[in-house]
Amino acid sequence: MSIASWVERDERVVWHGFTQMSCYNASTPVIVEKGDGNYLVDVEGKRYLDAISSLWVMTVGHNDPDLNQAAAEQMQKISHSTLLGNGNVAPIELAEALAPRVPVPDPHFLFASDGAAAVEQAIKIAFQYWHNRGVTTRDTYLALGEAYHGDTVGSLSVGAGGFGTSMFDPLRFPVMRTPGYNTDNWAELATKALEENHNRLAAVVLEPLVQGAAGILVCDPLDVSQVAAAAQELDIPVICDEVATGFGRTGTLFASQQCGIAPDIMCLGKGITGGYAPLSATAAAPHVYETFLGPDLGERTFYHGHSYSGNALACAIASRHLQILDERRILDNVQTAAAALAAALAPVEAHHGVKAVRRRGLMAGVELDPPPGAELWGRMVCANAVERGVLLRAIGDVVIIVAPLSVTPGEVEMIGHTLACAIDAVAGR
Amino acid sequence: MSIASWVERDERVVWHGFTQMSCYNASTPVIVEKGDGNYLVDVEGKRYLDAISSLWVMTVGHNDPDLNQAAAEQMQKISHSTLLGNGNVAPIELAEALAPRVPVPDPHFLFASDGAAAVEQAIKIAFQYWHNRGVTTRDTYLALGEAYHGDTVGSLSVGAGGFGTSMFDPLRFPVMRTPGYNTDNWAELATKALEENHNRLAAVVLEPLVQGAAGILVCDPLDVSQVAAAAQELDIPVICDEVATGFGRTGTLFASQQCGIAPDIMCLGKGITGGYAPLSATAAAPHVYETFLGPDLGERTFYHGHSYSGNALACAIASRHLQILDERRILDNVQTAAAALAAALAPVEAHHGVKAVRRRGLMAGVELDPPPGAELWGRMVCANAVERGVLLRAIGDVVIIVAPLSVTPGEVEMIGHTLACAIDAVAGR
Repeated sequence: MSIASWVERDERVVWHGFTQMSCYNASTPVIVEKGDGNYLVDVEGKRYLDAISSLWVMTVGHNDPDLNQAAAEQMQKISHSTLLGNGNVAPIELAEALAPRVPVPDPHFLFASDGAAAVEQAIKIAFQYWHNRGVTTRDTYLALGEAYHGDTVGSLSVGAGGFGTSMFDPLRFPVMRTPGYNTDNWAELATKALEENHNRLAAVVLEPLVQGAAGILVCDPLDVSQVAAAAQELDIPVICDEVATGFGRTGTLFASQQCGIAPDIMCLGKGITGGYAPLSATAAAPHVYETFLGPDLGERTFYHGHSYSGNALACAIASRHLQILDERRILDNVQTAAAALAAALAPVEAHHGVKAVRRRGLMAGVELDPPPGAELWGRMVCANAVERGVLLRAIGDVVIIVAPLSVTPGEVEMIGHTLACAIDAVAGR
Repeated sequence: MSIASWVERDERVVWHGFTQMSCYNASTPVIVEKGDGNYLVDVEGKRYLDAISSLWVMTVGHNDPDLNQAAAEQMQKISHSTLLGNGNVAPIELAEALAPRVPVPDPHFLFASDGAAAVEQAIKIAFQYWHNRGVTTRDTYLALGEAYHGDTVGSLSVGAGGFGTSMFDPLRFPVMRTPGYNTDNWAELATKALEENHNRLAAVVLEPLVQGAAGILVCDPLDVSQVAAAAQELDIPVICDEVATGFGRTGTLFASQQCGIAPDIMCLGKGITGGYAPLSATAAAPHVYETFLGPDLGERTFYHGHSYSGNALACAIASRHLQILDERRILDNVQTAAAALAAALAPVEAHHGVKAVRRRGLMAGVELDPPPGAELWGRMVCANAVERGVLLRAIGDVVIIVAPLSVTPGEVEMIGHTLACAIDAVAGR
C-alpha cells in the first residue's frame, strides 16, 4: 500500500498531537512501519535517520535485539500487575538499578507512564509535603519563563506560555515566574524571587541545563547550582524535570549531575525505556518521602496512583536499558558524538538564515532568522531535510536536533550536511 | 529469595500509589513474579486469583500467548515512533479497529498512556472546542458528586472529594457539581444544572453507569441517557470517562452502549491493551474535531501531545486484544459470568456485616457495615481473602471485585465463597 493511502487512513482516524490536522496530508508525514537502529523505515521502505530520536525518547536505536529480548522475557512472566498496595519484581529491580544512578539521594520512585504525569506527581508531592509538615500556606511554585513541563493541567500550570497555553488560564493554577534561560541573569532573578517569597513556595521547578521545548535554550550549569543552592538553603524543595534531559541526552546520565545538584524531587521519562515503552517516574528524597509516612489510611498518605504505575513490561525494558548504557559505554559515545555534533553545526551557524545554534550534549536547536513576512521557515527546512532522509522537527523557527545516544560520526556528519542543504534551500545562500 | 526479603527491597525503593508505605510491610503485600491466565504467582510460587484484574486493567488473562505474540511481532518491527507530525502503522490500525466499536460516531483518536491523561485531553479539547467556535465564556464543567477521573490536577478537578483531594483545592480549577449515583434523583438534578448553566459549561463529565472508585456506585442506564440527551439538546458536549467501564467490564463493550448514548468525547484506558501495556485514548466526534481544523501553526490547533502517544507496541497489543474479544466470544462469557457473579454475591449480601452489594457486569462493590469504632474492615476482609488466595482490594469499607472478562464459573464461585469466609472472619457470623 502506498504512503499516500496510509496518510489518508491515518488522517481519517488518528488525531496527532501538536499537529494541525488540516495540513497533515500536505505536510508529507513519514508513516513508519519499522525501525532499524538509528533509522526509521516507512511503509514504502524508505529510510530516515531519526535525528529527533522519535521525539526525544529513543536512545540506543530502534528494534534493538537486546531490548526486544528483555521485553519478550518479561512478557513470558507477566506484563503487568498493580503496584497499588502490592508489588512486582520488575519495578523493584528497576528502582534498585535507578537508585544509585539518579542525583536524588536514597530515592523512592513513584511510577507513571506519561512524562506529564511524573510532573503532576512531583507538583502534588511538593504540595502535600508541606501539608504533612503542618504548613498550609505554601500553595504556589516558582517556575521559569519559557518552561515546558507537559500538557496536563498541572504541568501546563508550571509551564510558561506559548503553544496557545494562555487560552487555558481559567484552568491553570497561578505560579510565580521569573525569566528563563534566554535572560542572562535568570539565576539572579530566580534567587531573588526565592528569597522574597520563600514562605509561600511549595517548590521551585526547573529543567536543568536545557529548556528543551522552548527551542533548546541553554544555560551555565553554575547558574542552576546557584538557584538550587538558594532554594535548598531556604528549605524550598527543588523539582528537577529531567524528562527530556535525562538518560544521557546532555552528555551525563542526568543534567543535574553537570550542575552538581541533588534535587529533592525529580521527574524521569522519555529515554527511561530507551524509547520503547511508556514509562515515567518521580523520585523523592528521604526528607520528602518520610513526611508521607503515618497511620494506615491516614491523611499523610499520597492518594495518587495510575493503573499502569510500574508496568512490568516497561520496567524490564528500562532495567535492561540501564545495563546496555554501561555494556556499550554509551555515555562515552555521547561525549564523542556531541563533540562531532558541535563541529558539524559550527558551519551551519554561519549560514545565511541562521540566527543562533544552541547545544548541550546531543540536544541542539538551530534558530532560523526568517526575514519579515517569511512564514514557516522551521517547517520548510524540516520538510526539506525529511525529503533528504533525515527526520527533523522544528518548534516554531527553531530546528531541533535530538540525536540518538548511539549516533555514529558519519550520521552526525549527515545531520549537519543535510541541515545545511535544507537551510540553503529555504533561506537561499 | 523469600517474600519477606522482596517486600523489604520493595519498600526501600518503590513508592506505591494509594498506599501508606509505613504499613506496607505489615500489610503482607503480594509480590508478583509471574502471571498465568486469571492467576498471579508470587515470588514464592503461591497463586492468587486476580479478582481485581490488577486494578481493573486485565481482561483475558495474564501471560496470554496470543497477546505476547502480537507484542513480539510488533517489537520485531518497531516499538515506538512519534505521532507528533508523523504516523506509524500500529496506531493507524488500532484507531481503525476501534472506530466502529466505540459509541462516538466517526471518531478521531488522540492517544496517551495514563488514563488520567486521556481525561486531561478530553477536558482541554472541550475547553478549546468553544474557543475555536469563538465562545470564551464556557470555562467550567458539570461533574458529579463521588466522581473519580484520575489524579493529575485537571482530572482531580473534575473529580469530587475523597482521598484527601480537598487539600489540593488551591491547585484545582472550580467546577459545578451535582450529586452522584448515591442520590436517587441525580439525573434530575444534573439536568436542572445543565439547563440553568448551559452557557457557562464547556462540557459535562460522566462515568456512565458505574462510579467505580466511589465504591462501585451504580445507576439506571436511562438516567445517564436522560442527562446526555439534555446536555446534547443544549449543545453541551458529553464527555464519557470509560477508562474503568470500557472494554467489556460492565457487560457491553462500553457502558455508554447500555445507556444508549453517543458521547461527543470519550476517554479510554485500562482494558484497552488487555492490561498489558500503558495506553489511553481520547475519542472525539467530528463536530468537535472539525473545530480544530485551520491554518498550519494557527491557534485552532490542539497544542497537546505526549511523547509516547500512540506507542506502537501498546497499540499492536490493543489491536490483537480487540480481535481476541471477538475470536473467543469474550463478551458472551462476560454475560454468563456476570450472572454467575450476581448469584455468588446474593448470599453475601445477607451476611452479617454487609450493608449492600452493587454490581454492573463484572464490577461489583460489597459495602461492609462496620459497627461504630470498628476500623479498617475493608482492609481486613481483603487481607483475609488474599490469605485464602483471592486478590481483592477495598476502597474504604467497600470491597471491590473487578473480575477478569475470562473468569470461569468456578472462579466466580471461588470469589464469592472466599469473600463470604473473609467477611465472616472479620465481622463474625
